[in-house]
Amino acid sequence: MTDHHTTPGYSDDKTAVLKRLKRVEGQVRGLTRMVEDDTYCIDVLTQVSATTKALEAVALKLLDEHLSHCVVDAARAGGAESDQKIKEASDAIARLVRS
Amino acid sequence: MTDHHTTPGYSDDKTAVLKRLKRVEGQVRGLTRMVEDDTYCIDVLTQVSATTKALEAVALKLLDEHLSHCVVDAARAGGAESDQKIKEASDAIARLVRS
Amino acid sequence: MTDHHTTPGYSDDKTAVLKRLKRVEGQVRGLTRMVEDDTYCIDVLTQVSATTKALEAVALKLLDEHLSHCVVDAARAGGAESDQKIKEASDAIARLVRS
Amino acid sequence: MTDHHTTPGYSDDKTAVLKRLKRVEGQVRGLTRMVEDDTYCIDVLTQVSATTKALEAVALKLLDEHLSHCVVDAARAGGAESDQKIKEASDAIARLVRS
Repeated sequence: MTDHHTTPGYSDDKTAVLKRLKRVEGQVRGLTRMVEDDTYCIDVLTQVSATTKALEAVALKLLDEHLSHCVVDAARAGGAESDQKIKEASDAIARLVRS
Repeated sequence: MTDHHTTPGYSDDKTAVLKRLKRVEGQVRGLTRMVEDDTYCIDVLTQVSATTKALEAVALKLLDEHLSHCVVDAARAGGAESDQKIKEASDAIARLVRS
Repeated sequence: MTDHHTTPGYSDDKTAVLKRLKRVEGQVRGLTRMVEDDTYCIDVLTQVSATTKALEAVALKLLDEHLSHCVVDAARAGGAESDQKIKEASDAIARLVRS
Repeated sequence: MTDHHTTPGYSDDKTAVLKRLKRVEGQVRGLTRMVEDDTYCIDVLTQVSATTKALEAVALKLLDEHLSHCVVDAARAGGAESDQKIKEASDAIARLVRS
């Protein structure tokens, strides 16, 4: 049986996240092939931008799941745990915005 | 008297946020002066990057306040309100990451 | 008379850049008013994202002008000057991408 | 024998770029394993940010090579080709900044 409090927030959508990551991996392998085949730089760059966007979408999905589960649970539990989860989420958001 | 549930989350740090925005406004005016004075493009660009970073820091501060107050309160209240606040916060984070 | 080689690359579009910066300054003042008026955080964040995008557009405009003028001129002149201008432009692009 | 004008600009550093892409591919596979193993979301997010940064570094490397070779060559050739290469590079930079 699953204990809601010990599994990470993205469990519900684990399959969806794994599918997206598979696709990102394929995109990165596609980039390797493009460089090996001496594809024109600008075309490679267009694909790098698309891959970065796909990776950002994974991050936003994970973050949304995390807020919906871990953060909501912690907020309900209250106390130091709640404050710490918010701080942790804010720090992760800052890393994403800056990356 | 202030009702915690009706005031926006950033109230506690309103003065800090306003101070940062004042500084950003000064940075943008500085950019105008640089362009008027025909400052070398690369130096202007360095200042544009600094200004963008300062603006992002304002956003991250506002978001942190929002999560700590509105989102935590909504999570505790529970129900549809809670889900809606999380969705709203996730959408705002997505806009920030993509901007 | 204007000496093409001594004026910064954005001179031709100086008026357009100054107009955009004026608008960004207005947007930042708008943010200050929103915070003073206790506008809902999420609405403030939406405006911060719009302001960041406007500032990025200024940077991309300046960079395009810089490449079209200074970098092209330096490439034609050749030698160390050319290499140095490319390095300088690449560094500015890196700062933009990371900001 | 290599004709400088028909090979893409990143040829000189092709090995370096391919090495970086291999590493990014490994990072993405690492992300898949983390999600499969139910690693804590925040730790996954930290690794997503690191992967995005690595991918951006590839883009900046490709762009620097492109400016140093294709754009410099086109600038020297002059005419419409020069203008078109600059426009193309500016558009690629805009996509990177926005991704």
